[in-house]
Amino acid sequence: MSPPRIRLHALRQSTVGHTAIGLWRHPSSRAHEYRELDYWIETARILERGCFDALFIADALGPLDVYEGRVDAALRDGIQTPTDDPLLLISAMAAATRRLGFAVTVSSTYERPYQFARKMTTLDHLTNGRIGWNIVTSALDSAARNLGLEHQIPHDERYAIAEEFMEVVYKLWEGSWEDDAVVRDVASGVFADPSRVHPIGHHGVHHHVPDIALSEPSIQRTPVLYQAGTSPAGKAFAARHAEGVFISTYRPDMARALVSDIRAAAAGEGRDPRSLRFFTIVTVIVAPTDELAAEKYADYRAYASLEGALARYSALMHIDLSALDPDEPLSYVETDGIRGMVELFTRLDDTRTWTPREIAGFVGVGGGGPVLVGSPETVADELERWMAEGDIDGFNIADPVPPVTLRDFVELVVPELQRRGRVWAHYQGETLREYFQGPGATRVAPEHPAAGYRVPAPGARSR
Amino acid sequence: MSPPRIRLHALRQSTVGHTAIGLWRHPSSRAHEYRELDYWIETARILERGCFDALFIADALGPLDVYEGRVDAALRDGIQTPTDDPLLLISAMAAATRRLGFAVTVSSTYERPYQFARKMTTLDHLTNGRIGWNIVTSALDSAARNLGLEHQIPHDERYAIAEEFMEVVYKLWEGSWEDDAVVRDVASGVFADPSRVHPIGHHGVHHHVPDIALSEPSIQRTPVLYQAGTSPAGKAFAARHAEGVFISTYRPDMARALVSDIRAAAAGEGRDPRSLRFFTIVTVIVAPTDELAAEKYADYRAYASLEGALARYSALMHIDLSALDPDEPLSYVETDGIRGMVELFTRLDDTRTWTPREIAGFVGVGGGGPVLVGSPETVADELERWMAEGDIDGFNIADPVPPVTLRDFVELVVPELQRRGRVWAHYQGETLREYFQGPGATRVAPEHPAAGYRVPAPGARSR
Repeated sequence: MSPPRIRLHALRQSTVGHTAIGLWRHPSSRAHEYRELDYWIETARILERGCFDALFIADALGPLDVYEGRVDAALRDGIQTPTDDPLLLISAMAAATRRLGFAVTVSSTYERPYQFARKMTTLDHLTNGRIGWNIVTSALDSAARNLGLEHQIPHDERYAIAEEFMEVVYKLWEGSWEDDAVVRDVASGVFADPSRVHPIGHHGVHHHVPDIALSEPSIQRTPVLYQAGTSPAGKAFAARHAEGVFISTYRPDMARALVSDIRAAAAGEGRDPRSLRFFTIVTVIVAPTDELAAEKYADYRAYASLEGALARYSALMHIDLSALDPDEPLSYVETDGIRGMVELFTRLDDTRTWTPREIAGFVGVGGGGPVLVGSPETVADELERWMAEGDIDGFNIADPVPPVTLRDFVELVVPELQRRGRVWAHYQGETLREYFQGPGATRVAPEHPAAGYRVPAPGARSR
Repeated sequence: MSPPRIRLHALRQSTVGHTAIGLWRHPSSRAHEYRELDYWIETARILERGCFDALFIADALGPLDVYEGRVDAALRDGIQTPTDDPLLLISAMAAATRRLGFAVTVSSTYERPYQFARKMTTLDHLTNGRIGWNIVTSALDSAARNLGLEHQIPHDERYAIAEEFMEVVYKLWEGSWEDDAVVRDVASGVFADPSRVHPIGHHGVHHHVPDIALSEPSIQRTPVLYQAGTSPAGKAFAARHAEGVFISTYRPDMARALVSDIRAAAAGEGRDPRSLRFFTIVTVIVAPTDELAAEKYADYRAYASLEGALARYSALMHIDLSALDPDEPLSYVETDGIRGMVELFTRLDDTRTWTPREIAGFVGVGGGGPVLVGSPETVADELERWMAEGDIDGFNIADPVPPVTLRDFVELVVPELQRRGRVWAHYQGETLREYFQGPGATRVAPEHPAAGYRVPAPGARSR
């Protein structure tokens, strides 16, 4: 059996500082061009040349303001603040490419399912079936505060609300318009046959959606579903719904443990555990030789912002790191965020302490994720090792000096991986879900919860 | 003084049947391609060749289900049902053009201002200042029902809520980031200067938005603002906020009365009444000769759907026309919608009655608006007459057989209007607001209510 394909996603956000903070100052960085279409179109074309499955666009709905209790540090380094809407970028990139998929982050907490279902269907129409949705529930207090919530909804309750949200959008995507509802019959003057379009009649706890879906069905109907949370509630949600899972771990053995957990839970939900695809975040610094790559990495590192890293981690951990002693190990702080982070770091390297200063230094170019540095052969060896030891399906490649890091990867690493038969030379299939599950598998698998809402129910009507 | 420029908008919705119902069956119609990027990109290029100010994309957030109390007739003719999201089309068309503007319909009733402000800023970034917003408050009960409202909000209350919505988005667009907040200073490591980015601190009746805008400012900041309502509350709203007004009248003298009303109200708000631009909807059927144009019109008319017209008008008038005697004059029906419509029709032609059957016949190809049929010279004469007699600024050109009707207009009528010096040969200015107010006028006028929220306040700080 030939070794499995390495599946590639690229990670971006429509902002200045995302995983690597401060590198916007590097002379080669075009991070500040995030507002320009040409920048995104060029990125999409680079990724399609590299046969990437998809570009993953992250998002944040509020400014990062935990550090020092204000937004200043985030503004100084452009850390997800400012940030623009990711959905509005897609159609321009779709027009400039033919196969690249797009996985876009949208929070179920701040969308109305009726409107949101139409957004995804519209994008699936316009991309000819290349759209994916990264489901998030929005942890930022600043988002809650500005988007009409009196208080942030507790974490597990957000996931409970998200469960009903999924039910509604599944009904709209799978259970409203039959496959042959649109007949476009000029002779009889019927565009859509009303007897094959059904009101979904949803009356739940959080949502009431009685009527038919506003959009006719798209190629994939339900977009490819991604999830990134690794809390217990997040993992359970991923096991039920996710087809792609973005993970963030520091060593392959840590990835394997997490992947194994979620696959087992998916099996418990009646799903094929191998149908879930796991992508671990990684930053790749590549050059023709190991020496040149090391030099490049050192050059990038010189631009990393220590304060920016603390500001970003303060938001991730929900604690103001500026208020702590920079040289005191964090383990004395009694919050869930800190405990989780310290536990994670300790599993990574239990020979050292983790102080705020050490964290800031560690984050650097990789944003807290692993950084692979070396020649194309060295990097390819490492990626293959991660695949084997981590039991993952591919990678989520960060872009600290956009679009240079990604272009280096496509020009240097992808050809090496293609030589090894690990990356496609040409796309197989035309829709994002086919890249995941094989040519022909454009719709969600029969055992996926979305499939349960299909109309007519399988076998319910013969023709 | 040379006669004023005729300002052109084109009218579309991402749907099958919009103004002219049933014409999707015409062999030349590509209305069903509304889900494809190529169709929209081709449309945008046609309009840019014709130096149109903007493409106006309408929207509906619920299915049309008043006729017969169900959605069947709307589905059979694709009357705004199905309909896709208009915002998601823009970036692809923006990438394929350099000057064409985009006026997009979004309902303030179903958006959170914090998120919505970011959407418009993102589009203004991506289009380099070519975005406009057609402000609607959503009259459809079907939208209210599926989008989380127990009952439709009464009309005038929707406008009161919209007033606060405008206040919030003005603060976000004009009053959060100073012009020189983004310094991108590599030496000091400052991307944005926190002292020049201000939380808006909005705590109102319907919205709480305490923090800074998520997006850095775009070229126009506030998008060009459009409005289309002609109720008393709608006119008052237009007089305060609108820079472009879409109107729908059947004769130039009726347009003049309406325009004069709104301009006077705008003057009462302290605005230059001539700074408001009025565009009346019109369908143009043009061919090299009057005879050929008449033949083309007769051909199109043969495809008009009478039932579809009634279904559309039922939704517009909020009354089920299927329940009425098709041959009884409508004047006996006691509802506001019917009274308004009958009054309008009677002003148009008081020599006849208006029964449901007569309305359906009248709607035909023009969707209830005027249809100009003839050679390029004939049509140009009529358009010039409308301009002079109606005191309007231009037209909102419908596209009953898309994109053929628009292409005919650009290939046949625009050159004739250019010969007469009434349409640009080249765009003057680069942003949509400059097309409205002249080169250099990229920001809202000082007397516009949005300008009152600028920071720093004019004269408040010297540099």
